[in-house]
Amino acid sequence: MKPLGPIPQGYETKDGQLAIGGKTARDLVAEGGDTPLFVYSRELLDRRMADLRAAMPDRVGINYAIKANPFAPVLEHMAGLVDGFDIASGGELTMAQAAGLDPEKISFAGPGKRDAELEAAIRVGVTLNVESEGEARRAFAIGERIGATPRMALRVNPDFELRGSGMKMGGGAKPFGIDQDRVPALAKELIGAGAEWRGLHIFTGSQALSADAIIEAQANVLELAAQLADEIGEALPKLNMGGGIGIPYFSGDEPVDITAVGRALDDHIADLPAALNDTDLCIELGRYLVGEAGVYLTEIVDRKESHGSTYLVTDGGLHHQLAASGNFGTVVRRNYPLAIATKFGAEPAEEANVVGCLCTPLDRLADKAHLPVAEVGDLVAVFCAGAYGATASPSAFLGQGAAREILV
Amino acid sequence: MKPLGPIPQGYETKDGQLAIGGKTARDLVAEGGDTPLFVYSRELLDRRMADLRAAMPDRVGINYAIKANPFAPVLEHMAGLVDGFDIASGGELTMAQAAGLDPEKISFAGPGKRDAELEAAIRVGVTLNVESEGEARRAFAIGERIGATPRMALRVNPDFELRGSGMKMGGGAKPFGIDQDRVPALAKELIGAGAEWRGLHIFTGSQALSADAIIEAQANVLELAAQLADEIGEALPKLNMGGGIGIPYFSGDEPVDITAVGRALDDHIADLPAALNDTDLCIELGRYLVGEAGVYLTEIVDRKESHGSTYLVTDGGLHHQLAASGNFGTVVRRNYPLAIATKFGAEPAEEANVVGCLCTPLDRLADKAHLPVAEVGDLVAVFCAGAYGATASPSAFLGQGAAREILV
Repeated sequence: MKPLGPIPQGYETKDGQLAIGGKTARDLVAEGGDTPLFVYSRELLDRRMADLRAAMPDRVGINYAIKANPFAPVLEHMAGLVDGFDIASGGELTMAQAAGLDPEKISFAGPGKRDAELEAAIRVGVTLNVESEGEARRAFAIGERIGATPRMALRVNPDFELRGSGMKMGGGAKPFGIDQDRVPALAKELIGAGAEWRGLHIFTGSQALSADAIIEAQANVLELAAQLADEIGEALPKLNMGGGIGIPYFSGDEPVDITAVGRALDDHIADLPAALNDTDLCIELGRYLVGEAGVYLTEIVDRKESHGSTYLVTDGGLHHQLAASGNFGTVVRRNYPLAIATKFGAEPAEEANVVGCLCTPLDRLADKAHLPVAEVGDLVAVFCAGAYGATASPSAFLGQGAAREILV
Repeated sequence: MKPLGPIPQGYETKDGQLAIGGKTARDLVAEGGDTPLFVYSRELLDRRMADLRAAMPDRVGINYAIKANPFAPVLEHMAGLVDGFDIASGGELTMAQAAGLDPEKISFAGPGKRDAELEAAIRVGVTLNVESEGEARRAFAIGERIGATPRMALRVNPDFELRGSGMKMGGGAKPFGIDQDRVPALAKELIGAGAEWRGLHIFTGSQALSADAIIEAQANVLELAAQLADEIGEALPKLNMGGGIGIPYFSGDEPVDITAVGRALDDHIADLPAALNDTDLCIELGRYLVGEAGVYLTEIVDRKESHGSTYLVTDGGLHHQLAASGNFGTVVRRNYPLAIATKFGAEPAEEANVVGCLCTPLDRLADKAHLPVAEVGDLVAVFCAGAYGATASPSAFLGQGAAREILV
């Protein structure tokens, strides 16, 4: 038996089924049209943002990194909740524009921005989080050619990292940003050359669960930003402090104590270095805002035995849930939170393996899980599916195609 | 410095560039329209099949598992080369039909076939490689409802595996096929109930590089098939022996000695158990037929330094090359074969890291590679991109979208 990850708060039981927004899993599938289906909950998005606003100092803006979930209705909903957006490609710029997001509130990070992407961003006034000297030069040349002044912040590769983060984005050689010691020279050059100076973006890591580690990283970010501002000799109009607040995926994971994070940030702000007195501060979050608000529903199409093990074969799989299958950024596979959605809350009664429909042993959704007895036609729910699910999975694999998505 | 994988045979140099079918990398990008671009070579597809035909006994048919590369022009080209096709979903059936493949030559394997997929396959006379008792019952019910006789083979979960294979598909509890000891009873039931009996599919593993291991697995497959045929009490019209022949991806990998495999198979056929005398034998290959015939071309958009390391940032990445990035089915990341396509054959002169354009540390195409000095605008070639590249990668990730593909 292997443990399942913890089911996020806010999911209900109705008629013995998982319910979201008062609708049962079967009703949701009927509404979405078919399985496999991603269901995102407005109520859970709202609740998460409300809790975060309550915990964070008023002075700190909250940006949404749309890479976590760019489903158009989610973007439109988030537009009413957050203070800004981060995009990672020209494709995401197009999505942001289609969702009516204000380009002035958008920043664009990414180490491999093509000229066409830079041009599209500069034209509409998106802030570039510039990742290298070469990119700065290309952006200037484009600005000159099209007669527009690029808005530029510098993305810093800090010498420190976010301890315990799932993805380290600082501390040593990295393809992201500009090593901190080269930042002042480039910033002065940009300002001297007439860029609209937008400040700094310092991203130290993501998916950390330790409040202490996040507090420490934020303190380091503020200190580094103040030091860089002094060396640059100009105030920072903006400071994007990055994100890093993770969500619990696996057994034993605990949610981040955001009240502690907010309190520490409040203390830092009360004691802010002079160089940051008038700086717009923000944090940028993706997964934390949307991850726990989404569920992936997939139907059991076969129940079979092999050498004494039970397999529940679903019509979904790693082509929509790459990370849950254990094949994206993890070395040791562990079970995500998962349940039989049509027997939600029923007592576990057997050990079963939940697999996807793909013809590869990589396609596993739960190993040796303790579950209520499920049959063909029952629905399986994989939780924590709101971020890096639909778009971070190989949906064309084995001719499967994309899953459906609804926001309820 | 970390070694790169071996570049497959058949790639040429022209004007200092990688050339395929007499066209330079830059010409290919012009023809394909832009980077990132997958280029597949007709000549290399033909050569691989010719070598394989020469090595294998005439009696053994060669099937193409289209999951490896379902790009329509590749499918159409393969139709003129192979004896049959294996599909893994209703989506692949649609692609096969669009490419004009003969449904009578198609078999359909996959542990999670939905009713609609079974129905579509039964309607056009595709052979079902049935994976469980439950699937057999569902297929019969559908056949009855639509007035068609299902063509059925049974997929066997053998007690043995293909030693050293990248993906083990046998030997113990598995979601694939029917445990070998339950096969005779189900086969008799199907035959008794009036299915069109098509024999067995025994798949033991994939991506093996040892000829000895493949020879041993094929001997075990033939022995098991003969034993099952005896127990069933009916000859096997067909036996799909699976595939398993791998390709070299990493430094130190050697190509499979297919002449040795063919010779051993010849010996087995000369000494075939009586139960298999009139059986159509085939092997089913995907990666081996198309993997080395494809290259992924991506342009360098930035060249940067961080803490003494050089990064070449490309406009491609793991969204098209998930396996090459080390994030699909591998525990330890190793470098695929890769070259600077616009400086092909030039002497290596520096250590560089080749990364993709995505804002994640997972997006690596080569670590600490010894390469000629490359600049912005140079093209990078990732080899072994003909199989499980375009469709086995999360192309929508970070708003990137699919790569272009051409067959030349």
